[in-house]
Amino acid sequence: MFLLQGVFREELEEEFRHTMQEYIPFISKYWPFIITGLVCYLATRFCFYALGDKDKRISMYNKDGEHEEADLDTDEEVNDDSEIVPALPADLKHIPFEFERYSEEESVRRAKEFYELVKTRRTVRFFSKDPVPLEVIQNIVKAAGTAPSGAHTEPWTYVVVSDLDMKVKIRDIVEEEEKVNYLRRFGNTLSSAGEKWTADLKPLRTNWIKEYLTTAPYLILVFKQVFSYKEDGSKKVHYYNDMSVSIASGILLTAIHYAGLVTLTSTPLNCGGRLRSLLERPSYEKLMLLLPVGYPAKNATVPDLYRKELDEIMVQI
Amino acid sequence: MFLLQGVFREELEEEFRHTMQEYIPFISKYWPFIITGLVCYLATRFCFYALGDKDKRISMYNKDGEHEEADLDTDEEVNDDSEIVPALPADLKHIPFEFERYSEEESVRRAKEFYELVKTRRTVRFFSKDPVPLEVIQNIVKAAGTAPSGAHTEPWTYVVVSDLDMKVKIRDIVEEEEKVNYLRRFGNTLSSAGEKWTADLKPLRTNWIKEYLTTAPYLILVFKQVFSYKEDGSKKVHYYNDMSVSIASGILLTAIHYAGLVTLTSTPLNCGGRLRSLLERPSYEKLMLLLPVGYPAKNATVPDLYRKELDEIMVQI
Repeated sequence: MFLLQGVFREELEEEFRHTMQEYIPFISKYWPFIITGLVCYLATRFCFYALGDKDKRISMYNKDGEHEEADLDTDEEVNDDSEIVPALPADLKHIPFEFERYSEEESVRRAKEFYELVKTRRTVRFFSKDPVPLEVIQNIVKAAGTAPSGAHTEPWTYVVVSDLDMKVKIRDIVEEEEKVNYLRRFGNTLSSAGEKWTADLKPLRTNWIKEYLTTAPYLILVFKQVFSYKEDGSKKVHYYNDMSVSIASGILLTAIHYAGLVTLTSTPLNCGGRLRSLLERPSYEKLMLLLPVGYPAKNATVPDLYRKELDEIMVQI
Repeated sequence: MFLLQGVFREELEEEFRHTMQEYIPFISKYWPFIITGLVCYLATRFCFYALGDKDKRISMYNKDGEHEEADLDTDEEVNDDSEIVPALPADLKHIPFEFERYSEEESVRRAKEFYELVKTRRTVRFFSKDPVPLEVIQNIVKAAGTAPSGAHTEPWTYVVVSDLDMKVKIRDIVEEEEKVNYLRRFGNTLSSAGEKWTADLKPLRTNWIKEYLTTAPYLILVFKQVFSYKEDGSKKVHYYNDMSVSIASGILLTAIHYAGLVTLTSTPLNCGGRLRSLLERPSYEKLMLLLPVGYPAKNATVPDLYRKELDEIMVQI
């Protein structure tokens, strides 16, 4: 068994034998218990691994060790790990890059313009019921779909919900879980202490009532695809799906703002699985964000926040 | 060894005992080795855990279980987990949200305009040496700094490198690690088989030579802050730092494109730690992306890629 773990190193053998002799009286008496304890520990670990949530395992693997810092070079190239099925043909052509170059002055002007544009974006939690043309949402999603992704796997699914019944079901699930979370977190039980805490939080607008989930004309639920299936039925692992979908979400948020709409960047607590089932998404997809999208309510307020200054976030070398 | 498969359940105990009896002669002979193997295995795991990279441990914790799906409600509210130190004062004022509403037609027009704008973005790996005004880079970083973040922690640091010596040092580190990675991955040894594989990959421009790291006028190294320190010296954990910084990176990439510049979205393999030391960033920061930024070379090419159609990425309910 020690061979499996691959740590029985030659150079440690000698030292090890000395150490063992000290402990032999103890070990020879209690060895069955020691073995059992260790075996149970290992069995537990492996049971958890074998029976645990599939998505989670893949996601853990995905984030782990070597792969965590593997070359992304997103957008356009075959990741060269042999386990990765190329999303791109091996004989992929390269074509001239079409590019219109601005003058320096124009680049300066545009960089400023973009900053001025995005700095007015705020997270809003008070929505108007006013409808939004579907075409707006379609273009917003298309914009998000231009994001780079690990080995160009494009590991995202955007579920756009405008059906009121479905919004009500989503709200029910989110509020049910949220209520439990809030009460548990603040009161440790469903007690009046918990109720008090959440009441105290009202000025911050953080409670389990999520009215915006039925008020906003659209909910966009952003799923990452942890893997997918190729046409021949074999699995295609999506390395960096997490980072890729988050980068795409940055573009999505910018598109929403550019179109004159608002959203609230939220990841509903503990109900990813239930929402995935409700929306009939496959098990290899995992909910990352739930974004109500629409116009703000007329009396919408936002917290009086400041953002860090440039010298707090940028270091120049 | 079957125990490793994780089947030590109550209902299997009986069977287990029988099986054990078969193995007892083996165990009584080799028990010191069995114990050693297990102990070594565990010692290794725990040593790794105790002495391993601090950032990694925190980052793992951060991604784990309950916290993974905790309520983000980014940008503006105190995350209510008691371990989280509010980034915002408890008596935070709420102010009216200033908002200029476009007509429906204007929203449709702008949503399309934004899509048309971002769809021309491509990852480019051939850069011009032409200088770019620092002001452009500053505004790009400021734009990224407007991103929402978990409990408004703004967990990002952008290291902007224009100094040639530093770019050379960065390139040396990246190429050194990349060469090892490429050869090891394709040849399993530093053999000619490995060399051949990487040569075969040349049409895809994936090799360990990263000329762009010294050609591009700027390198932007995006670090996530896994935690930070408050003024009183205590630790402030940054939940969702990973997602927050990736979302900000989506805005960063869009800003680079909007200003008429190009970049290559890459995460250098296995050299985050060395680059962090080189750039003298604290241990609680972790490199996420390395972005060369500049104008494309005149003869720049890109792979002839297509992107998924809207109906492949969007589901409407």
